[in-house]
Amino acid sequence: MWGDLAAIGDEGERGYRRFAWTPVDLALRDWFRAQAEARDMTWERDRNGNEWAWWGTPGPGAVVTGSHLDSVPGGGAFDGPLGVVSAFLAVDLLRERGFAPERPVAVVNFADEEGARFGVACVGSRLMTGILDPGDARALRDADGVTLAEAMRAAGADPGAIGRDEQALGRIGAFVELHIEQGRGLVDLDAPIGVAAAIWPHGRWRCTFHGRADHAGTTRLADRHDPVPPFASTVLAAREAAGRLGALATFGKVRVDPNGTNAIASRVDAWLDARAPEAGTVRKLVEEVTGAARDAAAVHGVRVEVAQESWTPVVEFPGGLRDRLSAALGGVPALPTGAGHDAGILSALVPAAMLFVRNPTGVSHSPAEHATTDDCLAGVRALATALADLACR
Amino acid sequence: MWGDLAAIGDEGERGYRRFAWTPVDLALRDWFRAQAEARDMTWERDRNGNEWAWWGTPGPGAVVTGSHLDSVPGGGAFDGPLGVVSAFLAVDLLRERGFAPERPVAVVNFADEEGARFGVACVGSRLMTGILDPGDARALRDADGVTLAEAMRAAGADPGAIGRDEQALGRIGAFVELHIEQGRGLVDLDAPIGVAAAIWPHGRWRCTFHGRADHAGTTRLADRHDPVPPFASTVLAAREAAGRLGALATFGKVRVDPNGTNAIASRVDAWLDARAPEAGTVRKLVEEVTGAARDAAAVHGVRVEVAQESWTPVVEFPGGLRDRLSAALGGVPALPTGAGHDAGILSALVPAAMLFVRNPTGVSHSPAEHATTDDCLAGVRALATALADLACR
Repeated sequence: MWGDLAAIGDEGERGYRRFAWTPVDLALRDWFRAQAEARDMTWERDRNGNEWAWWGTPGPGAVVTGSHLDSVPGGGAFDGPLGVVSAFLAVDLLRERGFAPERPVAVVNFADEEGARFGVACVGSRLMTGILDPGDARALRDADGVTLAEAMRAAGADPGAIGRDEQALGRIGAFVELHIEQGRGLVDLDAPIGVAAAIWPHGRWRCTFHGRADHAGTTRLADRHDPVPPFASTVLAAREAAGRLGALATFGKVRVDPNGTNAIASRVDAWLDARAPEAGTVRKLVEEVTGAARDAAAVHGVRVEVAQESWTPVVEFPGGLRDRLSAALGGVPALPTGAGHDAGILSALVPAAMLFVRNPTGVSHSPAEHATTDDCLAGVRALATALADLACR
Repeated sequence: MWGDLAAIGDEGERGYRRFAWTPVDLALRDWFRAQAEARDMTWERDRNGNEWAWWGTPGPGAVVTGSHLDSVPGGGAFDGPLGVVSAFLAVDLLRERGFAPERPVAVVNFADEEGARFGVACVGSRLMTGILDPGDARALRDADGVTLAEAMRAAGADPGAIGRDEQALGRIGAFVELHIEQGRGLVDLDAPIGVAAAIWPHGRWRCTFHGRADHAGTTRLADRHDPVPPFASTVLAAREAAGRLGALATFGKVRVDPNGTNAIASRVDAWLDARAPEAGTVRKLVEEVTGAARDAAAVHGVRVEVAQESWTPVVEFPGGLRDRLSAALGGVPALPTGAGHDAGILSALVPAAMLFVRNPTGVSHSPAEHATTDDCLAGVRALATALADLACR
């Protein structure tokens, strides 16, 4: 089962590249549908491109589990797929045990969770819940200028149908997402499995430095409007402020135009990812980074714009569901995370919870991302237990 | 004549993108050949991909003029093409005047002058003179991993034939390259035309910062091996050192991998362009920048490599030819430049000179690059005078 999936979008040493609505994504979706059909589960694709596999008749009160199959560029094998694979294996395990659910059970593959192509994460769940405006979503563009609407159409989906989906939402009685942990919390606690306490508030800001193209070999330093040095100052200011404020700040995506060795850049676009336990801390961080960018840009005769591209408030997963799962699993620990998830988006509207599987190195969004087979199997058993607990009343 | 050329590789507001051995380059080459044939000039492509148009029988002692048709990304219309267009127009002007050259006259279009695709500038003239090893050249790779050898083959040229070309060199009696000025020297001197005194020594260094991919939302600052902050420190160190040493230092090309918003980068490649009036100053600058890169990388648990990709020593154009041209043109001023040119490469082996045409803003390697029509026509007349002077004895 992992075997067929593992080859899709694999770029070897460079890791996985599984971007939304690409041919690779369509291959992942074919895999999902084949898994559903092999289990006699009813396959559906909803209006927002999320895929569903139903054990029992689709309908209200369903116990839903799953995650996503897309990846960041250079991603690992576990972030997303582990939750989908474990969901199907948990269904298998419950069936082997002869378990007869009293509610429908569904496995879901959310569309475009990483946001690697269009810059906004959790697009499938944000659209379903109405958090993302469908018009804004259709207009999102990838690095080649292709809109989400065009990409969906090219992949055989209807961008005109996207938006808040009451039918899909109304069927979810509870959602449990299993995910590899993306830090070393469970390593420190010496536990293979945990439940999520909260997701830190986080967002993305695009910083654009407008300079003037010129010849690197002939333009005096004083005559330059070079956007690269103020960008560099902004990177260092963000790192310093994050350390001081107890936050996280990352510039992981940068675009330099025209990107020629002997050409002074005309423009730099750089994306700030900022997170902290408290929303106020993130705001303060972004204010400080913006101020530093403006100051550095002014020194270099460069104009800077800082635009928020996404914002996700703090998610405190509901204590009742969390405690019930923790108890069903024999008292596994609860821990927070800095990473956004579809479960966090859904928790605004439906009861949602997450299970984490231990990650020995804590490394994720990397080909080095890893969990042991024993811990993955412990994850499947824990998820089966959680589904059985939720589906029997 | 400009009209047909102007459309090729034009990306509108983004300027010109005319990379070596691409379909755009082949269209430029077709234009060159058509110009030669329209004038009954003998067209040739030499072993290194440089194109020639001969007035008279190809042979030793020729007076050669021309420049290049390729561009940097986001380039202007003048850098390169002005020298080729002016060369053909100077031939037209001499013929109108009934001038009968006593030596063969040739117009040349040098291959891959900007080095925008494969990272090494003046490939056509460096190969012809033997300054660039043909094996090294064949192995150069573009951003997509395509080698120069593959690109040449795809464009119908034989990469096995490249290398020092005694025949081509032996025919050049003198070479005069007309070029738009890439600074404001002639503006300050209030002169439309000048001759080149010297080209500053200059080179390119690739700085590679090896970090570790990880999740931007979950990896503690202390656990990161993020290559972006040490790259940023290196940019600022280069700018500071250049100002202090009276040199130029530019990072205009940057590549971040995997370049995802919520992924800590695994690697940054950044290219340093460094120039100064003296080679020793460039060396000192690069040493300082390398030291700063190492120090910053160590702080972040990142490994850095700095590799020289090209080096061009100072070029002092021969005083005899320079003074002769200046005198023939009524005493136009001589001025240095920080930009490399094919004339600089050739001057190691044959008498070479350059004419500059005034650039009102000094801006170049930019869509804003410009020269007035009056100054361009003055350039054609000056080049015709220079060719007549050189070709009549």
